[in-house]
Amino acid sequence: MENIVKKLEINCDMGEGFGRWKMGPDEELMKLADVANIACGFHAGDPSIMRKTVKLAKEHGVKIGAHPGLQDLIGFGRRKVEIDPEDMYAMILYQVGALTAFLKAEGVPLNHIKPHGELFFYMQRDLAICEAVIKACATFGVPVYGAIGSDEEKALCEKYGLIFVEEAYVDIFFDNNKKLVRVGQGKLATPDDVYTRTMSIGKENSVIGFEGVPVKLDFKGKPFSICIHSDMPTALDNAKACRKAIDQINTEKGWS
Amino acid sequence: MENIVKKLEINCDMGEGFGRWKMGPDEELMKLADVANIACGFHAGDPSIMRKTVKLAKEHGVKIGAHPGLQDLIGFGRRKVEIDPEDMYAMILYQVGALTAFLKAEGVPLNHIKPHGELFFYMQRDLAICEAVIKACATFGVPVYGAIGSDEEKALCEKYGLIFVEEAYVDIFFDNNKKLVRVGQGKLATPDDVYTRTMSIGKENSVIGFEGVPVKLDFKGKPFSICIHSDMPTALDNAKACRKAIDQINTEKGWS
Amino acid sequence: MENIVKKLEINCDMGEGFGRWKMGPDEELMKLADVANIACGFHAGDPSIMRKTVKLAKEHGVKIGAHPGLQDLIGFGRRKVEIDPEDMYAMILYQVGALTAFLKAEGVPLNHIKPHGELFFYMQRDLAICEAVIKACATFGVPVYGAIGSDEEKALCEKYGLIFVEEAYVDIFFDNNKKLVRVGQGKLATPDDVYTRTMSIGKENSVIGFEGVPVKLDFKGKPFSICIHSDMPTALDNAKACRKAIDQINTEKGWS
Amino acid sequence: MENIVKKLEINCDMGEGFGRWKMGPDEELMKLADVANIACGFHAGDPSIMRKTVKLAKEHGVKIGAHPGLQDLIGFGRRKVEIDPEDMYAMILYQVGALTAFLKAEGVPLNHIKPHGELFFYMQRDLAICEAVIKACATFGVPVYGAIGSDEEKALCEKYGLIFVEEAYVDIFFDNNKKLVRVGQGKLATPDDVYTRTMSIGKENSVIGFEGVPVKLDFKGKPFSICIHSDMPTALDNAKACRKAIDQINTEKGWS
Repeated sequence: MENIVKKLEINCDMGEGFGRWKMGPDEELMKLADVANIACGFHAGDPSIMRKTVKLAKEHGVKIGAHPGLQDLIGFGRRKVEIDPEDMYAMILYQVGALTAFLKAEGVPLNHIKPHGELFFYMQRDLAICEAVIKACATFGVPVYGAIGSDEEKALCEKYGLIFVEEAYVDIFFDNNKKLVRVGQGKLATPDDVYTRTMSIGKENSVIGFEGVPVKLDFKGKPFSICIHSDMPTALDNAKACRKAIDQINTEKGWS
Repeated sequence: MENIVKKLEINCDMGEGFGRWKMGPDEELMKLADVANIACGFHAGDPSIMRKTVKLAKEHGVKIGAHPGLQDLIGFGRRKVEIDPEDMYAMILYQVGALTAFLKAEGVPLNHIKPHGELFFYMQRDLAICEAVIKACATFGVPVYGAIGSDEEKALCEKYGLIFVEEAYVDIFFDNNKKLVRVGQGKLATPDDVYTRTMSIGKENSVIGFEGVPVKLDFKGKPFSICIHSDMPTALDNAKACRKAIDQINTEKGWS
Repeated sequence: MENIVKKLEINCDMGEGFGRWKMGPDEELMKLADVANIACGFHAGDPSIMRKTVKLAKEHGVKIGAHPGLQDLIGFGRRKVEIDPEDMYAMILYQVGALTAFLKAEGVPLNHIKPHGELFFYMQRDLAICEAVIKACATFGVPVYGAIGSDEEKALCEKYGLIFVEEAYVDIFFDNNKKLVRVGQGKLATPDDVYTRTMSIGKENSVIGFEGVPVKLDFKGKPFSICIHSDMPTALDNAKACRKAIDQINTEKGWS
Repeated sequence: MENIVKKLEINCDMGEGFGRWKMGPDEELMKLADVANIACGFHAGDPSIMRKTVKLAKEHGVKIGAHPGLQDLIGFGRRKVEIDPEDMYAMILYQVGALTAFLKAEGVPLNHIKPHGELFFYMQRDLAICEAVIKACATFGVPVYGAIGSDEEKALCEKYGLIFVEEAYVDIFFDNNKKLVRVGQGKLATPDDVYTRTMSIGKENSVIGFEGVPVKLDFKGKPFSICIHSDMPTALDNAKACRKAIDQINTEKGWS
């Protein structure tokens, strides 16, 4: 991956059901996404769902990343849990390793690793945890996806030889410090909001923030990815609006 | 692996604790075993225990196999659970994939896959389950270990290009049909029993069975492995007795 | 409870989500049901969902029963699991006991116990399991609900001093032997089917069966309850159709 | 329970195995303890172990309390987990309710509730959690056991009409602020230490603390209980030493 944007992309969290329980509209979303982050059984997902989601992504030519989380099904990986960094390292290896078996069986590569929910926030506030996760990711040698990361996180990725791909969110907010605001805080985005925000990110590198003023995201030509939540009530319409904006920008800029 | 016995070996199930709970004396057993079957978190084991056990095996030059089981921590993978073959296939991929991440991180290869407890028995009585497991194993291309397998199991291994390594058990019994008798049935073996049985298997290809008469195991020069349970009260003494017998036989036969 | 039908009632399985995952439309169903069977955390449900569902039932004056199941979240309690009868006895005590705490906190009584999914079928085919469950129910002294039970089950209820309330199902089928056919087998019922079947049960004591001919249910004036599945795609319309039929019959027969 | 010490007692955490995994030597400890705190399946324990432990306690005339914990088997309830107070309230009801079913089946009363491990510490540092737990305990109307509690905790017990029974620990340390030091910090106590500390608590109301100087516990004649950990390597010898000291003091003081 070179150090310039080639093409805007949508990534979506997928495979976040468990047993008979469903979460997002994966079948429909898969037609709109470029990249799928597949849950690995700790915050959501189970072996059969992982297999099915990998096959679905492969059918649609969607790239596949691992989406490891905290071991917390009941809290969907969104509660704080205190974990020893050594244990965290092992938990990431376990989850990503599990996903790689499905990729191996289907003959498709691992595209990236994207920490889920509270795991992402944990990495931002605890450097030992951040290093444990990134060191585990280094075993697989693929880029790490995450919302605007801390400088420390970026430095750790560099130390372990990994590319850090920043994510722009268009259905939840960044605050004025470019910190992601947790799901559930702030007004729910409409599909129109999603379209407008995607356009402003793609064309102006900025997006309206939690405080109501534009936040300069400043990707500076480095690769980034736009994330659409698959578990929001309007997920499908959000993805359509985002797809439309992205296709316009990619065409206009001659990216492909 | 060629089609002749090169050397007798001991395999032991390891890493079968969970969180703070311990099962066998892994640290001591690792000094006596040639091959470790490491639990993958479904019937026992967790990411931190898997990591620790992989490192311990590596330190002692012990070969590492995956030891997947039914998803049944509370029953230690020894209860019957009805599973759809498609789900079973996914469960094996998940578990073995998870273990491979720890091997990758430590730079050691996967030696084999050995189904645990009830999963082994399930494969013997249900051909669709047997094929689902073996098909999943084929993704990793390593031998499958198991107590004297059915002809169907052997044929499936052949179909999927896998070597089937039969196991001789010396601390539990085979019945007269060479079917393994579940742990807990039959008299508990003493270390002396283990020594005697190992010697008779190594030298005469037969072992005293559940009905009290010798059972011809008839490995016919094909590779086989002797399994010592790590969760019996006398596990450590059993392993020592087995080690002593095996070393004698390997020396005597000029195997190495 | 006397030995005659006083009034037809609808019972629904409720609280069958887990963490962030939802199952049926409980809020709407609660307005249509007379009796709620609340999942106890083994096949579905968690403490917060149990509490919320108990409060919701209380608000709507809906009677509350415990809905224990096999310990199998991933299979929603619909897979066969082999369980020792002593363990089964303990599992029922655990689940029903857990529910009673929420009832105690809200000051409402336990109305009955209704085994879920595979647990019901297990009781039909294994007498030791059947007795273990009923013996556990006897600790609470409330009626046991179940689809047309075996004679053995009825005899066991009598032995332990419990009333057995048979259930008529109108959204899945009975076969010609009055055995319930598992969810997912047979054509999906429409709300019109549900209405028609409820009327024929209420008025003629028979219902169209899996083989397409009427099955005589023969409740003979003993108490019975009509169950509507809350996890079918048309659950809400099924419940409305059933409510309409039941209200007609209760009015017509002068039951109240 | 009146407001004066009638007799010194030992309480022990029991039933902290899971499935095939064992923790403390419950059978032996039960002969030495006055009060058993029985794990309820969240940090340890399962229905069969709970039943067995309740029966064992009953056989030995040992009083039974519920020992609820955080829902964290893999961390044995000793890791910090962030929980919403409403969820916490439900989690306590669930666990204690589950235990009461076994008590009901055996015809023995619930003696008290003792929060386990990190749950105790969570209550000390978060008042909303403390109130949620105590409010749940109030449903059962039994005393709450805990190491020297905060004034806020005592006030909450009073608000909800509950007796708070403070615990003296003699195998781990209090610091100079009478705060309990987590298991694993500080030098491991020997049985001799346990004897000495029990004597000094019983006779002088003080015990050697983490900083090496005596800590005045100052129970002022209010009921208190001495806790012995069942999961320490020397648990059994600790319990014997404590028993010996307690019997001496009870005899000497004429308590019985």
